[in-house]
Amino acid sequence: MKFSELTKSQLEELYAETKAKYEEKKAEGISLNIARGKPAPEQLDLVMGMLDCLSSHDLCKAQDGTDCRNYGVFDGLPEMKQIFADLLEVKPSNIIIFGNSSLNIMFDIISRHFTHGAAGCTPWSQLEKVKFLCPVPGYDRHFGVTEYFGVEMINVPMNDEGPDMDMVEDLVSHDDSIKGIWCIPVYSNPGGVVYSEKTVKRLAALKPAAKDFRIFWDNAYFVHHLYEEDQGKIPEILSECAKAGNPDLVYEFCSTSKISFPGSGVSAVAASETNIKEIAARLTFQTIGHDKMNQLRHVRFFKNADAVRAHMMEHAKLLRPKFEVSLKVLERELGDLEIATWTKPRGGYFISFDAMDGCAKRIVSLCKEAGMVLTGAGATFPYKKDPNDRNIRIAPSFPKVEEIEKAMELFCVCVKLATIEKILGK
Amino acid sequence: MKFSELTKSQLEELYAETKAKYEEKKAEGISLNIARGKPAPEQLDLVMGMLDCLSSHDLCKAQDGTDCRNYGVFDGLPEMKQIFADLLEVKPSNIIIFGNSSLNIMFDIISRHFTHGAAGCTPWSQLEKVKFLCPVPGYDRHFGVTEYFGVEMINVPMNDEGPDMDMVEDLVSHDDSIKGIWCIPVYSNPGGVVYSEKTVKRLAALKPAAKDFRIFWDNAYFVHHLYEEDQGKIPEILSECAKAGNPDLVYEFCSTSKISFPGSGVSAVAASETNIKEIAARLTFQTIGHDKMNQLRHVRFFKNADAVRAHMMEHAKLLRPKFEVSLKVLERELGDLEIATWTKPRGGYFISFDAMDGCAKRIVSLCKEAGMVLTGAGATFPYKKDPNDRNIRIAPSFPKVEEIEKAMELFCVCVKLATIEKILGK
Repeated sequence: MKFSELTKSQLEELYAETKAKYEEKKAEGISLNIARGKPAPEQLDLVMGMLDCLSSHDLCKAQDGTDCRNYGVFDGLPEMKQIFADLLEVKPSNIIIFGNSSLNIMFDIISRHFTHGAAGCTPWSQLEKVKFLCPVPGYDRHFGVTEYFGVEMINVPMNDEGPDMDMVEDLVSHDDSIKGIWCIPVYSNPGGVVYSEKTVKRLAALKPAAKDFRIFWDNAYFVHHLYEEDQGKIPEILSECAKAGNPDLVYEFCSTSKISFPGSGVSAVAASETNIKEIAARLTFQTIGHDKMNQLRHVRFFKNADAVRAHMMEHAKLLRPKFEVSLKVLERELGDLEIATWTKPRGGYFISFDAMDGCAKRIVSLCKEAGMVLTGAGATFPYKKDPNDRNIRIAPSFPKVEEIEKAMELFCVCVKLATIEKILGK
Repeated sequence: MKFSELTKSQLEELYAETKAKYEEKKAEGISLNIARGKPAPEQLDLVMGMLDCLSSHDLCKAQDGTDCRNYGVFDGLPEMKQIFADLLEVKPSNIIIFGNSSLNIMFDIISRHFTHGAAGCTPWSQLEKVKFLCPVPGYDRHFGVTEYFGVEMINVPMNDEGPDMDMVEDLVSHDDSIKGIWCIPVYSNPGGVVYSEKTVKRLAALKPAAKDFRIFWDNAYFVHHLYEEDQGKIPEILSECAKAGNPDLVYEFCSTSKISFPGSGVSAVAASETNIKEIAARLTFQTIGHDKMNQLRHVRFFKNADAVRAHMMEHAKLLRPKFEVSLKVLERELGDLEIATWTKPRGGYFISFDAMDGCAKRIVSLCKEAGMVLTGAGATFPYKKDPNDRNIRIAPSFPKVEEIEKAMELFCVCVKLATIEKILGK
């Protein structure tokens, strides 16, 4: 029954009923957190063998004989580069291996643009204004980095194929203070959108007014499929940019944070020869080298890109039921009401939920009151400001299936309650 | 026999003799590297047990129950903080644990001063001029970081007690563009100087014209003693600064790079509550957290600060003969000639050698020609410019004792040859 077809008194009745249900749930004393895209312990169990890959009896030598225990090899072990190169479909020479956090690489590259500039352009710290395009809804930590640096963020709506490319093309071609765009091209956070071939090619072929405009291509979920079939697949961005005459337009990021151990994984950046040179030139001042022992662990455990892909299918087996139960409850509880829409992702870590305008904050706060932590409403937008106050990111990866079912039931009660309150002006 | 007492013809004779010796050594086809402060494999062997501290059968839990395999704990495990706190004689709350590189923390803090400023002051990127005091000879990578950021570096001579404090006090009190000083207070690189109590107290009591002047206190060799007795010991800098009314004057850095595995260690910064807050405020944008699994390995292997100190005495047993043979050869070959001076360090990784003015480059190049790589002459000064062209850093830690003996013999031949060339104007 659609809410829009209910009379006021029917709504009042439903409100009382829903309110009672909410109080009931609240009394259960739930304590749940579905705020962050955090792998479950069972996923981490799958990679425990990595801890046995190096032991006290080992020589800890890389393939070329390097003693990984000592200083050196600032850009990463060749065999670690090879695995990332195969996964990203680029050459190892286009890759630099970093530490445990791809977010940290992004932060650092933006920091470099601010203090030193890139491609011979004026450092951003010397400019009146620096702007970034932010496809929305998007990843709060991306927006956090640009906000930290005082970048003005411009919302660009996402559609089924990626960011609104008409808007992107128009903006970047006219305004040379627009210096970048945040993209999560495969299973976007939170929408789960896989950019279409057309979108990728249009991005690669951008003609930005700013010579140092860069696409920040955060390929965070590149092998994070939920299903064996119809896996998200996009054209390789470095070669697309090169073909379009824009070889230096993009920085691509990825990591094993949600493949091996979050916080103890390996991250990498992929970029053109020129960009790699600029990154390396800074890196020689920043560090003597990243953790080669951990790279060696990863290389020995996974051996190659195919093994990483196979490993991720084991993750999928654990994650899929959690997404499916979430979607099942949403469909069962809200499917007929026409008061909300949500994504049905085939990979990544999130479901993006759009409530009726003006309801998201209230829903999150109702959930919190009842013991369930969601990502803050607004978090998926720059400055934490969702202009419609409707988007909520649901991260069902960490809790157990039965907990998620419970959580989503509570969530749906809160959605209904907030929606009726809104309609009735309570 | 002092060179200064030789006649010209005696010198010519000695030149021919030394030249012949040099050609002989060169013909031996030596291939040696004593350029970097790199632990020897035998030192790393001492810590191999750390690799068995985590295995696939482990729960990988921190003392408070945290699953170290997953995201979280962005400022470091409490038990890891405790070990660093005990070693540095500060409170755990004054510590943030970082990744594998203290150099990276220093770089990043300077970067923050440039883009965001500290203590409410203007970001350095918006200033006409930023200057740093650089005690010389010093650490090339320090100078590299400040050079990378375009900082003007001012040489401050080192003496037996640390930097020339009259000069430091005078400069910082008059010039508010002087924003920092690089210090390695225990077993300085390369001089092996341990700052005197008086020097530390004078540094802590500085009254800099710039409110955001900071001492970059790189306590890199804080437990890196070569002997059981007369170990380098300085007053704890944070409390000295606080006592002097300058609680926020200093950032202190250290790591386990030369304690456990270089490149796979754990680093930390220690600072006042206010400074820690500023560092943490940035860190939340930079990363979700550093490598807790590696922290857990370190905590389980070492358990406490005393064990770290005991472990370093095992290092000392391996390093001591290397320093002693170096000093023995220097004394035997050059002791009577009055053409050079050198330090006799009781800790750290280096011997600092001062040749006759104008000879360092030539010595390094003669060594190189004969197959031995030394740190580039000039590397111990800002801009790689040794105004007297006399300082050479000797790093005897990596090769075997017999190799070092050979290396130092060759070195001494090169010193004599270059010196005679210089005197005779060849």
